[in-house]
Amino acid sequence: MASKFLSERNLKFLLYEVYDVGSLTQYDYYKEYDDKTFDMILKATMELAEGVLWPIFQEMDKNPPALVDDQIKVHPSVRKFMEECGAGGWIGGDMPFEWGGQQLPKMMIQACIFIFAAANYSASVYPGLTSGAARLILTFGKDEMKKTYLPKMLAGKWQGTMALTEPEAGSSLSDIMTEAEPTDSDYYKMRGQKVFISAGDHDAVDNVVHLMLAKIRGAPAGVKGISLFVVPKKRIDENGQLVFNDVVTSGIFHKLGYRGSPITQLSIGDNDDCRGYLVGEPNQGLLQMFQMMNEARIEVGAGATAIASAAYYASLDYSRKRLQGRRLSTKDPTHPQVPIIEHPDVRRMLLFQRSIVEGSLALLIQCGKYADLAGVLTGEEKEKSELLLDLLTPVAKSYPSEMGLLSISAGLQCLGGSGYCDDYPLEQYYRDARIHPIHEGTTGIHGLDLLGRKVLMKGGKAYKLYLEEVYGTIGEAGKYEELQTYMQRLKESLETLKKVTAHLTEVGKKESPELFLADATLYLEFFGIICVAWQWLVQATAVVKALRNGPGGTDTNFYTGKFFAFRYFFEYELPKVEGLARRLMNSDGLIVGIKPEYFSD
Amino acid sequence: MASKFLSERNLKFLLYEVYDVGSLTQYDYYKEYDDKTFDMILKATMELAEGVLWPIFQEMDKNPPALVDDQIKVHPSVRKFMEECGAGGWIGGDMPFEWGGQQLPKMMIQACIFIFAAANYSASVYPGLTSGAARLILTFGKDEMKKTYLPKMLAGKWQGTMALTEPEAGSSLSDIMTEAEPTDSDYYKMRGQKVFISAGDHDAVDNVVHLMLAKIRGAPAGVKGISLFVVPKKRIDENGQLVFNDVVTSGIFHKLGYRGSPITQLSIGDNDDCRGYLVGEPNQGLLQMFQMMNEARIEVGAGATAIASAAYYASLDYSRKRLQGRRLSTKDPTHPQVPIIEHPDVRRMLLFQRSIVEGSLALLIQCGKYADLAGVLTGEEKEKSELLLDLLTPVAKSYPSEMGLLSISAGLQCLGGSGYCDDYPLEQYYRDARIHPIHEGTTGIHGLDLLGRKVLMKGGKAYKLYLEEVYGTIGEAGKYEELQTYMQRLKESLETLKKVTAHLTEVGKKESPELFLADATLYLEFFGIICVAWQWLVQATAVVKALRNGPGGTDTNFYTGKFFAFRYFFEYELPKVEGLARRLMNSDGLIVGIKPEYFSD
Repeated sequence: MASKFLSERNLKFLLYEVYDVGSLTQYDYYKEYDDKTFDMILKATMELAEGVLWPIFQEMDKNPPALVDDQIKVHPSVRKFMEECGAGGWIGGDMPFEWGGQQLPKMMIQACIFIFAAANYSASVYPGLTSGAARLILTFGKDEMKKTYLPKMLAGKWQGTMALTEPEAGSSLSDIMTEAEPTDSDYYKMRGQKVFISAGDHDAVDNVVHLMLAKIRGAPAGVKGISLFVVPKKRIDENGQLVFNDVVTSGIFHKLGYRGSPITQLSIGDNDDCRGYLVGEPNQGLLQMFQMMNEARIEVGAGATAIASAAYYASLDYSRKRLQGRRLSTKDPTHPQVPIIEHPDVRRMLLFQRSIVEGSLALLIQCGKYADLAGVLTGEEKEKSELLLDLLTPVAKSYPSEMGLLSISAGLQCLGGSGYCDDYPLEQYYRDARIHPIHEGTTGIHGLDLLGRKVLMKGGKAYKLYLEEVYGTIGEAGKYEELQTYMQRLKESLETLKKVTAHLTEVGKKESPELFLADATLYLEFFGIICVAWQWLVQATAVVKALRNGPGGTDTNFYTGKFFAFRYFFEYELPKVEGLARRLMNSDGLIVGIKPEYFSD
Repeated sequence: MASKFLSERNLKFLLYEVYDVGSLTQYDYYKEYDDKTFDMILKATMELAEGVLWPIFQEMDKNPPALVDDQIKVHPSVRKFMEECGAGGWIGGDMPFEWGGQQLPKMMIQACIFIFAAANYSASVYPGLTSGAARLILTFGKDEMKKTYLPKMLAGKWQGTMALTEPEAGSSLSDIMTEAEPTDSDYYKMRGQKVFISAGDHDAVDNVVHLMLAKIRGAPAGVKGISLFVVPKKRIDENGQLVFNDVVTSGIFHKLGYRGSPITQLSIGDNDDCRGYLVGEPNQGLLQMFQMMNEARIEVGAGATAIASAAYYASLDYSRKRLQGRRLSTKDPTHPQVPIIEHPDVRRMLLFQRSIVEGSLALLIQCGKYADLAGVLTGEEKEKSELLLDLLTPVAKSYPSEMGLLSISAGLQCLGGSGYCDDYPLEQYYRDARIHPIHEGTTGIHGLDLLGRKVLMKGGKAYKLYLEEVYGTIGEAGKYEELQTYMQRLKESLETLKKVTAHLTEVGKKESPELFLADATLYLEFFGIICVAWQWLVQATAVVKALRNGPGGTDTNFYTGKFFAFRYFFEYELPKVEGLARRLMNSDGLIVGIKPEYFSD
């Protein structure tokens, strides 16, 4: 198996040359850091990924978690990994020193998540969820709650989860049925069923802390009645001992991929003895949970990009080594066969992958930067970063998830029949990555979020700020001869985006929500392509600057190759917006008007 | 598990209403048949599919073939199925009565293959391969060879295979190394290695007959030195007994999907005792094998369409039953949840699937009709059908294979998290179907075939005939008010096709083959979309005629739904040709010019 799963060179290019993570160290919160310490963090992360995660990537797939006597057993290395994540500070990476965190920029967190996920996506989920759950407690919990849970969670000794979905409430969270009954004490009695809970139970930690959505008895119907609770698998009794809290693992799901991470069904309070602890105020649960969901959405985008990265390097390795056929212009069968990377169509598949992986990763680091700026800036500037992050979150989740699948499929295709067999990791990447368009909101849900909410919010303020950002990039690129054509094309695409958005906004004003949002998923795809083209132009500008300085050596190859991937995106991916725009401009209600019975036969 | 895996109504619509299989019975070869007997055949095929294949669809995946002591063991029902296929005449379906066949039209054969494959793709491969191998012997073998092999193969007692691929010769068949050494007797001594041989060995038959490519010692290099042999696993000795023929199963591949069918590695002649029997003349092997390959390519298209069909009906069933959320215009959480088929985006995914499945199936039946006409017509008309079949074979193989994957992925997406778990069959369809863009020539190979060979052959004659066919459909559709818009759009797309083809042909004349064929895969996609749009217009014309006659009852739903799927294709799929054309018109050599070292990081 090839041992490369990502490009450190590219990661550093994005962090240092494009988005200048070092610029954040001017702010107090990040003043302990500089590029050197960031480098050390990347190095340590790579070491953990290569030393612990990568070697068990296939093992964890072949020996998935099993439910034995109410307890899920996972690969023994998960405990080691969680402990190392705790000891090394990864779980509390972006949390304040005060609570045992590292106060790292989100951009660096994105990079670390990407590294772990590229080495072993299933394994990366354990600390990732713990981190998100801990951050919810940090933001909304009282100090006592923080003192109880954060040290254990940040040390990797207790697992965190997000416990939202129920058998009858998946995409429709307003329909959750889990009930919280108030008591005279500081806890609620919890009763319900949760399904599809990632890392919902396992034996690599001493406890599991569910951040759970439930309804307090008598609460309003729908999302307005949802509250957030901490519901541990084991609670601490009066003697400080961990005792059973009536959360039973009633099932484990058998999945296409992503098999190293247990996805569980939980029965809560079957014996009327499950205690839940309210986080923050009642009925604010969904709003609070959105903090974790939004973070998780970006993490899903990073996970999808990471798997696509690993697939890309596996297929690149194969394409360099596998001899097959001859150049189209030298068909003489007595000549030796050439590596398949010599064939244009294989190069096309490799460039396609690289353009998706590096375009997506840029967008994710960009989102990390907005999150960081939102944390340190104030007033208008803070709001701007928040709005841009809000707007781009559905894109940063969905574009890598959807295109990552196609990218990985192209990687598998490079290997032909071998890609279909488990002697190579491609078939596993193909299975693992299929979860991403589903979890943390399906692509359809994100289409509704982008068009139905984000583009319109605050009178379209986020959308306008976004256009300004892209025009800024176009202006900068316009200074370079090498980028004229591409700058012009992105400009044209922005015109198309504006035309389509204006058209749909009009439909939204005049027609039914169904008609307005009928093609929201297509709009998300359309918006996403232009958005990633923008990120490619940002990168290309940095590349042109670097090439003009005559970087020399392997760096010349890196920058030149990157410029090819950039051109590929503009030549092969960006033109797709034309067909999409044609459809989006035609709000004829085709998919609204069809009746269910027409699907008969 | 939902029990519907295809639409019989639609199959009959295509066979009777669109392509009029009955019209073939005017020819002597098919005179024993009429629509009634065709109906009986479809009914019997459905019964076998529902009774034997469908119940073991998931079992065969969960208990894949195993290699035990040099012998591959498969699911016990495979023997029963092969015997029934033999007894019922399916294996020799289109072969002449004289040799124990049924003289059925290929259109009917396509329909039967589609039915079997929709019920259980892995199982359908066993008789399919046997049929193709038998047909090679029928076409090119001497009478004695036919007498030895055909009765056993057509009875389903002996398995047939196509043994082409070797460790160093996959897409590049000219590099095969398997050697045939002439002897003084009527056989050659065979030595070599074959890999990825489907159904290359198993215990559901008494013998396996490999139709094997090899090079006679001293033959010319490359494809000109390839000959075709019959190499049985067991040969018949002088006493008429089956004895070991030194073909050893040295391995079995562990695959992503398509697990019910063993894909094997064979060692041939390790003990210097493997006898092969030349089929036809020496050095004609590749040409001969193309008969089987071309048939197999159409069968792969049918298999891909079939899996997509089964996935469609599974996701339709789920979408009708699963309650989740409310209409976008009635968000009141106290209202009951609605079936997800009420959500526009779910309808879009269903319509997408239907448009791919029924568009692809139409193309396959169309190809079956060309094959049938090529068999019964003479002179110009015969050549026309042959040329059209030749031209469309790479499209009929690749379009369903590539788009089938996306269609199945959309089906899985309808189920959300449940689609990712093995409680539903979608995850298996997703795995099974991934083989189709790979086997029988990868999509990249078919791109080269279409643009580099088929479009240009005989001075572009096939291509011109194809344009005439499409214009014929446009002319017919033009008679109907309801089809004006769509007829016009297809006309515009044909103009784009002509422009792009003319451009690329010019590049081919003036520039290197690399530049000419750099985007051949994109051209295949582009050509395929227009081709399936044509098939949709053919169908829509029949639908409009039927609707004007006021069909009533469920038939009205069928035709109305079909018209929606037709509109869907023209609104959502056909516009993709615009972006593709934009790229195809730009022969800038982007993927030719990149050097392998530029992929370094």
